[in-house]
Amino acid sequence: MAVYTEVPDDELAAFVARYGIGDLLAVKGIAEGVSNSNFLLHTTQAFFILTLYEERVDAGDLPFFIGLMEHLARRGLICPLPVKDRDGQAVGQLAGRPAAIVTFLDGISVRRPNVTHCAEVGRGLALLHQAGADFGMERVNSLAVPGWRPLAEQAGAAADTVSPGLGRRVMAEIEAHERSWPQDLPRGVIHADLFPNNVFFIKDRLSGLIDFYFACTDAFAYDLAICLNSWCFEADASFNLTKGQALLAGYESVRTLTPAEVGALPQLCRGSALRFLVTRLVDWLNVPPGALVKPLDPLEYDRKLAFHQRVTDARDYGLKR
Amino acid sequence: MAVYTEVPDDELAAFVARYGIGDLLAVKGIAEGVSNSNFLLHTTQAFFILTLYEERVDAGDLPFFIGLMEHLARRGLICPLPVKDRDGQAVGQLAGRPAAIVTFLDGISVRRPNVTHCAEVGRGLALLHQAGADFGMERVNSLAVPGWRPLAEQAGAAADTVSPGLGRRVMAEIEAHERSWPQDLPRGVIHADLFPNNVFFIKDRLSGLIDFYFACTDAFAYDLAICLNSWCFEADASFNLTKGQALLAGYESVRTLTPAEVGALPQLCRGSALRFLVTRLVDWLNVPPGALVKPLDPLEYDRKLAFHQRVTDARDYGLKR
Repeated sequence: MAVYTEVPDDELAAFVARYGIGDLLAVKGIAEGVSNSNFLLHTTQAFFILTLYEERVDAGDLPFFIGLMEHLARRGLICPLPVKDRDGQAVGQLAGRPAAIVTFLDGISVRRPNVTHCAEVGRGLALLHQAGADFGMERVNSLAVPGWRPLAEQAGAAADTVSPGLGRRVMAEIEAHERSWPQDLPRGVIHADLFPNNVFFIKDRLSGLIDFYFACTDAFAYDLAICLNSWCFEADASFNLTKGQALLAGYESVRTLTPAEVGALPQLCRGSALRFLVTRLVDWLNVPPGALVKPLDPLEYDRKLAFHQRVTDARDYGLKR
Repeated sequence: MAVYTEVPDDELAAFVARYGIGDLLAVKGIAEGVSNSNFLLHTTQAFFILTLYEERVDAGDLPFFIGLMEHLARRGLICPLPVKDRDGQAVGQLAGRPAAIVTFLDGISVRRPNVTHCAEVGRGLALLHQAGADFGMERVNSLAVPGWRPLAEQAGAAADTVSPGLGRRVMAEIEAHERSWPQDLPRGVIHADLFPNNVFFIKDRLSGLIDFYFACTDAFAYDLAICLNSWCFEADASFNLTKGQALLAGYESVRTLTPAEVGALPQLCRGSALRFLVTRLVDWLNVPPGALVKPLDPLEYDRKLAFHQRVTDARDYGLKR
């Protein structure tokens, strides 16, 4: 559930008037995104989404995110298209925050992806990697290996209040990755957060990708590992091999993985499970009193990590070779 | 902020398919209404609002609410129009709850109403009273005078933890109204909750009324008193006489108040302030741990009540006679 910033009516009307999108007819706070406040706008022209960037998003990164969405949309990927104001700017200020208006995208995110959805998202991810290939900007992945240790230290001893031995398990895992993280894999723009809530479908066909606010420049196969984690496990943390096969085959129907990527996949899966484990752990331990946002369970990723630690070959995820 | 019931994708698709409104393209949880879960639907035909009735709404009352919206819309009042399914039913079951689909209504609710908004809502309220005159159903106002004492008793001694002496002030007020509540005033369908968040505007013109889930059969002037309370006070609990004049003149431009209504207005304002004071007080004292809904401040209505206790004549609210 999203946090809502209250936007004064007159400020909103003045903000919308700066874009050539008609007169405002309706506005609704919507439950989409966890880092930002989102509103559905209806104007005399069309429906749009207004996003107010809350403190978790660094305003300095907005040109990358906005530029990326524009680039991907021009390359034919279906994603929200930022609307520019009369001065040609996509990012403005509203209620004291950076704000942008993007086109409304049809589609429904699925809570329980089936095999078809996994195949579709694999293919969609590869299309995203292709479409981003000639995007001119770079952004460091702040949640890559060097970012994990400071997060784990932030959680500190409190980690063990969530699960006995969790702090030690996390630190051992971080040390292993710091020593041996694969370098020189094919890289480019990755989404880095392509969970089911960020993918829209219409009748089982992928209809769009949203929420590019973790996008960065990193290894393509790491993005794939994030999807294996977020799409192919069942609620009891068991890995669904049929879904893994579908997702990987969907990806490779567009872009074939290199031998180095195939070899690195088990470690990338472990690493990406760890990345969500540590960020969720910090969020879990830092829920402010009266918070409206319910934190996600870090232990879901502790269980997924345990699965990956036993994997030695990408075929165990369903890769056909 | 609304509570959200999670609706499984397949259940939603099956539910929407029962209405002849096209295929589902998008669904967003929206922050509207406090007693129900609301979702914006986009189909191949149009935009709609899906409402899931949570436990605060008695399912037995739904035929009244739905029938009223249909009646008012037929009479030309702009309000959500319930959509009937292929069997002619407007209320179905979804995610274990009664659910209905209504048309999407343009317009924006104002957080800080100005004088023009007050004039518009006064006029809109009188049009609602007129349009409802020949509606065939009745519903008892469960939050009228006889409902206040049980609520106050539910709060009990805890009232004084909110403000010293509040319990005693509330009980004294309830006793006064139980002895002398005006009878035989002109009555009919009232909205009973026409706060600014339930009134839509487009460019300062009233464009629609929503949320009829407190509507009932009661005195018209009591509805007017509720609006004076919710539209004409400033944030510091001072009464804005210019707004009161505008609201009352707007109302009387459509329907003239009888001498009995004019005479009763000060007491009706006291009573309606008390009604919101006691319901907010109970909500305030009963916030479940981890609740996502922030309760409204009961003391706002304690301060408004203190204003009304000093009023002796409807002219003090701005009524021109």
